[in-house]
Amino acid sequence: MSPEDQLALLKRGTSEIINEKELAEKLEAGKPLVIKAGFDPTAPDIHLGHTVLLRKLAHFQQLGHKVIFLIGDFTAMIGDPSGQNALRPPLTPQDVLDNAKTFATQISSILDLSNLQIRRNSEWLGQMRLADFLGVSTKMTVPRLLERDDFTERLKKGDSLTVAESMYPLLQAYDSVALEADVEIGGVDQKFNLLMGRVLQERFEQKPQVVITMPLLEGLDGAQKMSKSLDNYVGIQEAPDQMYGKLMSVSDALMEKYYELLTDEDLKQVKTLHPMEAKKQLAALIVKQYHGEAGAKAATEHFKNVVQNKELPSEMEDITVEAGDPQVTLAQLLELGLAEKAGVKSRGEFRRLVTQGGIKVDEAPVKDLKHSFDANQTYTLKVGKRKFFKLAIKTGQ
Amino acid sequence: MSPEDQLALLKRGTSEIINEKELAEKLEAGKPLVIKAGFDPTAPDIHLGHTVLLRKLAHFQQLGHKVIFLIGDFTAMIGDPSGQNALRPPLTPQDVLDNAKTFATQISSILDLSNLQIRRNSEWLGQMRLADFLGVSTKMTVPRLLERDDFTERLKKGDSLTVAESMYPLLQAYDSVALEADVEIGGVDQKFNLLMGRVLQERFEQKPQVVITMPLLEGLDGAQKMSKSLDNYVGIQEAPDQMYGKLMSVSDALMEKYYELLTDEDLKQVKTLHPMEAKKQLAALIVKQYHGEAGAKAATEHFKNVVQNKELPSEMEDITVEAGDPQVTLAQLLELGLAEKAGVKSRGEFRRLVTQGGIKVDEAPVKDLKHSFDANQTYTLKVGKRKFFKLAIKTGQ
Repeated sequence: MSPEDQLALLKRGTSEIINEKELAEKLEAGKPLVIKAGFDPTAPDIHLGHTVLLRKLAHFQQLGHKVIFLIGDFTAMIGDPSGQNALRPPLTPQDVLDNAKTFATQISSILDLSNLQIRRNSEWLGQMRLADFLGVSTKMTVPRLLERDDFTERLKKGDSLTVAESMYPLLQAYDSVALEADVEIGGVDQKFNLLMGRVLQERFEQKPQVVITMPLLEGLDGAQKMSKSLDNYVGIQEAPDQMYGKLMSVSDALMEKYYELLTDEDLKQVKTLHPMEAKKQLAALIVKQYHGEAGAKAATEHFKNVVQNKELPSEMEDITVEAGDPQVTLAQLLELGLAEKAGVKSRGEFRRLVTQGGIKVDEAPVKDLKHSFDANQTYTLKVGKRKFFKLAIKTGQ
Repeated sequence: MSPEDQLALLKRGTSEIINEKELAEKLEAGKPLVIKAGFDPTAPDIHLGHTVLLRKLAHFQQLGHKVIFLIGDFTAMIGDPSGQNALRPPLTPQDVLDNAKTFATQISSILDLSNLQIRRNSEWLGQMRLADFLGVSTKMTVPRLLERDDFTERLKKGDSLTVAESMYPLLQAYDSVALEADVEIGGVDQKFNLLMGRVLQERFEQKPQVVITMPLLEGLDGAQKMSKSLDNYVGIQEAPDQMYGKLMSVSDALMEKYYELLTDEDLKQVKTLHPMEAKKQLAALIVKQYHGEAGAKAATEHFKNVVQNKELPSEMEDITVEAGDPQVTLAQLLELGLAEKAGVKSRGEFRRLVTQGGIKVDEAPVKDLKHSFDANQTYTLKVGKRKFFKLAIKTGQ
């Protein structure tokens, strides 16, 4: 892949790259880069929100770079609210390793585990002495440390901010020094901490890491960040059918974002598809990532057979329309008496229903009178909220 | 000694006690208290400025309390301006111990060394791990730490303040926790750091230490803090004669402060003395502290014989005044023709010289025309800058 193509792949879906010129230079140097990404030592059920970052790491792996999956087991102690008498790791080292394994198993479909370095920052911070830490902390100033938005906010509001909490960005930055990271990737909410890594590396006379931030993925509601607690998530270990069904429920606008962040599909081509088609393809593509080709096919079938038909009553009234051509539009069907056959007061009333999305064909709203139907086929026609018909179009030949 | 008398002794010369009620309670408890005072690991030539604090410690020793002479060998690393790559102790542990011995030798005349605990804060901070320090730092908030005047000032001015520097008060406070100090004594410039000890001890569920601050002793110039670099100091290892001579040069106002902070003399009684007499007594008292009774006597003699006479020419013109009474005032001597005999243009001119301090009798300026002389004695009279006379007053009997 040319450096330009590499850069294009790496840029896809990113929120910010600080800075692109440095990244291009590092790529052009042709040596495998050290890519750092930090993770909590707890083992979450990974959902698609997490995969945005993991997939970006995968891009770097595909290009031959060295990805380090860094577990912040040491820094996690700082967040421990129970740490009143002493900071105790909320997890034992064995817990951390077990969790890392669970994590690794889950992400094996995204990242090449044989090429992934799993490290813990307790490796260098755990045995670090206060004296050494003070050496590190001569290289950072207090104003710089307190620039972080939430720190500034808390100090301004008079909220508590412990000295230990304020050390967090400095320690995370030191991880970059310890790993000699070339690139660090994190969510947009991590931007400050990632930039601290750049500053500290320079103080240690290392080349500053390139910072890449990834957007936070909205959940199925399209409003809030995907999270388990908000129940707007798709877990990557969820069953194919469930995964597919959840993905089919997202809005068209969100679908585009999901395509960008959760697949490698050509976005221009996706735009040429009918939204319903595109959504089915998205669902299938994602299910395929975690359950393979067969899983994706089965989920597609299941959705069609069971989910799409689930709302349909077992018995539906038949409507048959005789059409002269192999294809007819909805407008033509109205001319052929469709409104009357479906028990709608008038053709005007039927047209009003079309405009308002009250007419669905095979579960998809049809808002255009030019929508065309094939003759010699049977469709499910939903009129308003409750009336279902089996619509058969015949050519009469 | 009654608790009240103890409190009075301990209060003498202090700048502030936070707070007196707690100190009284601790004294009444009747148990030996742990008294902490911190010192730099460098071995200065101790001067009287240092002794203000040391003498206060001695008061606690006299009352049976346990004084800890704490050498801040660990915290001294933070101040090391050369610490660009790592914090290195500016002194080896052996250096620190050697310096402590030098220090101890110097202060042996002030403190009872057999009862003095010499500790180094590297004992607990040197091996402390970052993890443990973070445990300590969850107990202190950032706003509290940055309240220190010079920190606030530097941050406001946009000056640099490294994270390491900001840790200094927290580490010093932790020393109080480690030692379970009941009282910490320091200069007024240490007030913030000493108070941090109180805060941190409470967070560690210890009874907060009483903070005692001592004023900074002005040097011989009466204007700036006594320091070697300003050459306004009296070193406690200086020769008796030199020490005595320097002390004789201070102003009357400063002399009172020296009495309060450098001696245990009853201040009311001192006020009854003639200033010159009081000054000689002060000089002798202080020389005695460091060179014993014999040293003080010798210095007094030397000052009288050599220093006071040093400026006098070997040959001086004689002036004899015949007085009727066994005592005469300077005003009377003028009536008896003193001005004329001393070659001063007029009595008015002589009076002007008196007002301006241009007339000295036995080397001391005489600014009062009521100053009295004994008949049948000989005085050295200095008129202006250069004219010396041997003034003999006779009763004519």
